[in-house]
Amino acid sequence: MASSDTIVALATPNGTGAIAVIRLSGDDAIAIAARMFRGKDLNEVPSHTVHFGTIRDGSQILDEVLATVFVAPHSYTRENVVEFSVHNSPYIVSRLLQLAIDQGARSADPGEFTRRAFLNGGMDLSQAEAVADVIAAENKASHEIAMSQLRGGISSAMRDMREQLINFTALLELELDFSEEDVEFADRSEFLQLLANLKQHITRLIRSFEYGNAIKNGVPVAIVGKPNAGKSTLLNTLLEEERAIVSDIAGTTRDTIEETMTIDGITFRFIDTAGLRETSDQIEAIGVARAREKVRAAKILLFLYDAQDNTFEEIVQQVRDLHRDELIVVLVRNKSDLPDKGLGSTLDDALRRELLGSCASDLVVISAKDPATVQPLKSVLVNHIRGLAVADQQIITNLRHLEALKRAGEAIDNVTSGFEQGFSGDLLAPRLREAARHIGSITGEIDLDRDILGTIFGRFCIGK
Amino acid sequence: MASSDTIVALATPNGTGAIAVIRLSGDDAIAIAARMFRGKDLNEVPSHTVHFGTIRDGSQILDEVLATVFVAPHSYTRENVVEFSVHNSPYIVSRLLQLAIDQGARSADPGEFTRRAFLNGGMDLSQAEAVADVIAAENKASHEIAMSQLRGGISSAMRDMREQLINFTALLELELDFSEEDVEFADRSEFLQLLANLKQHITRLIRSFEYGNAIKNGVPVAIVGKPNAGKSTLLNTLLEEERAIVSDIAGTTRDTIEETMTIDGITFRFIDTAGLRETSDQIEAIGVARAREKVRAAKILLFLYDAQDNTFEEIVQQVRDLHRDELIVVLVRNKSDLPDKGLGSTLDDALRRELLGSCASDLVVISAKDPATVQPLKSVLVNHIRGLAVADQQIITNLRHLEALKRAGEAIDNVTSGFEQGFSGDLLAPRLREAARHIGSITGEIDLDRDILGTIFGRFCIGK
Repeated sequence: MASSDTIVALATPNGTGAIAVIRLSGDDAIAIAARMFRGKDLNEVPSHTVHFGTIRDGSQILDEVLATVFVAPHSYTRENVVEFSVHNSPYIVSRLLQLAIDQGARSADPGEFTRRAFLNGGMDLSQAEAVADVIAAENKASHEIAMSQLRGGISSAMRDMREQLINFTALLELELDFSEEDVEFADRSEFLQLLANLKQHITRLIRSFEYGNAIKNGVPVAIVGKPNAGKSTLLNTLLEEERAIVSDIAGTTRDTIEETMTIDGITFRFIDTAGLRETSDQIEAIGVARAREKVRAAKILLFLYDAQDNTFEEIVQQVRDLHRDELIVVLVRNKSDLPDKGLGSTLDDALRRELLGSCASDLVVISAKDPATVQPLKSVLVNHIRGLAVADQQIITNLRHLEALKRAGEAIDNVTSGFEQGFSGDLLAPRLREAARHIGSITGEIDLDRDILGTIFGRFCIGK
Repeated sequence: MASSDTIVALATPNGTGAIAVIRLSGDDAIAIAARMFRGKDLNEVPSHTVHFGTIRDGSQILDEVLATVFVAPHSYTRENVVEFSVHNSPYIVSRLLQLAIDQGARSADPGEFTRRAFLNGGMDLSQAEAVADVIAAENKASHEIAMSQLRGGISSAMRDMREQLINFTALLELELDFSEEDVEFADRSEFLQLLANLKQHITRLIRSFEYGNAIKNGVPVAIVGKPNAGKSTLLNTLLEEERAIVSDIAGTTRDTIEETMTIDGITFRFIDTAGLRETSDQIEAIGVARAREKVRAAKILLFLYDAQDNTFEEIVQQVRDLHRDELIVVLVRNKSDLPDKGLGSTLDDALRRELLGSCASDLVVISAKDPATVQPLKSVLVNHIRGLAVADQQIITNLRHLEALKRAGEAIDNVTSGFEQGFSGDLLAPRLREAARHIGSITGEIDLDRDILGTIFGRFCIGK
């Protein structure tokens, strides 16, 4: 561990609350804190102990605080760390930060504590990145993926892959040294098999990004249908049941066109296409254009119809228009409570034959105002998303990891085709090293550019 | 200390930040936390130690956390306390609270931790109330008053007063027992002197509320003057210099008519009377009416004028109209940078003779756009407020304390006049007890109604 200056930051959020925690980390963290603190001499106390005392500000007492001491390397950053737990007043927090700076600390950059944890070997890079995801997680599914990554979920797989690539590169390079003797150390067919396995694993991880991303950012669901098809009623019924569950989770932002709700731990973003009407107002038109874009980005489309207001031909026509690859279309017949002399179920049967399996995946019959009938629709939504996940599979949620995997995959493709064209080892070895480097960049096992680290940790909040 | 159920709450604010602290307090706090925590057995660890481990949620790991254990009575509440320091994610926080509740804790009411600290003798009532003030303090002056109160600043004075009252009541009552023998234990003239001293102390404390309240809530300053007198320029110059200092203090709310700034640790609320123009719009008229009320509530009035746009008679007339008791009027001649052939200073001299000491307290000459010339005006503002405070004096900031002191003062007045009218001790003793009870209610030395405690602690945030 290199010697390090001491950083200080507020680790808890701004806002109303009982306590704030201010964290110091670095070689002099304990010495600086000890100079600020009246009570036991923090230089002399054992690691992982808490001490009551005061912080002096000139002749005044700034606050009565608890000081917790962590002696390196037994801390988050693996450096000396002191945490002051103080009354959460804006004045106390800003003064205490200033007093720490007066004593020789400096303000931490965003993510600098976690960056130090990574640089000091406390965690690998994919784990460090997961810290931000854990903090941002607002539902069970995204929390589980982030927590799995934080605990090294993809790290070992990446390390295995990289090791295999490096071992084979070494064998290829060994051949080069003995090339005049025409020795062939690496078994070519075995080698091709390894490349195929690696590529398969990488492809699986790349595919997992779609699920991971949906889980992390919420699954966009568009509800379409005629003006009186019952879109708002359906949305309200869905929301009413779930609102109680989501309401105590802070930070959910809503805009006028989207309603977010979490069903079985998966967050869905429902796009209310009622806002998509034609308009001559220019400002509103921009809003409508944005809304249409969101519908185009939807992963699931709920097509609402009923036997009174829609004809078979009309529905088939519209669903075919809306259908595209990767979009899950669910046909939803509404108003099942209205008597229709069997018209509805006849229509359903015709639509099932015409559309299911080709343009649509499911047909559900509901009465939008009756929560009990909406329940099967919720199951359909959840099952489609769960279906994207494969059991026991590592899941990628990070765009940087996705890009690294794609590049590694391309490098492996190049090596494979080079082999098949009979290229010699000296041409293929650099390509293999490149693939290994891309894989290594995910866990940070290779030396990464300062700029890349800056970008990664710059997205963190201050104090983490 | 009575046995208590175990309460749980988030102690840190909602919002973006690295860590959140969840606090448990009560007889079973450690046992409950130990059941939630995988790591060392928290039942067996010493007080004031921190332990790394995980929180399990069924078969999943909810988070990697630090658990700090405080064994009763060595904690804030004097009960067993455990604090979990967790990743600050809305999902983790809500799940962890639920897991604690599943294990037998219940959600804490607002202020319940501090209420327990009071009920268990960790602090008196005026100290407990100061906790909320310390948290709310946004500037140095209000912080210092709140911190002094938290550390028992007014408690000992209240206890002294109450003791004196009770001692004398006891003497009076003793006389009653021996009344047939016409014994007079309490020296009447000494007694009247004591009452006078107590009354003087109470009056001083009541007066201190004006200063304390101004410090706590900000000093309202109205700026008046003709439309082109330079009100906005002055406000901008004041703000520009101070903005850098206040900008990093969160929670300052601004509405359109007020600008808040802290000068030398005192917060001023400048009321921009530019918004006070006549209007026919009904909604705007409501806003204007509110603004006028605010001007009427101002403690300081800055009257802007200049030699070009205002006549002596006009200024004298307007200042006399605006003047009222308790309002500090500062005459501010603006545009000192414009050449005026000495007109300005002649006008100033005339105004000084006519208004200073009667309707206005100061006359300051500025050029509103030049920060250097505005500096003396800032000193005038600060000195007026500092002048309200008396050195080494206890300061009252709490309305409940003010009311209690007023009632105690009235009871003492009654006793004094009763004495002077020759009333006997048995008539006066109950009145003295009443005064003692009012004083005792400030520190909570008498048994307070549950409703009163509910009101006091109900104003706290959850988790404190």
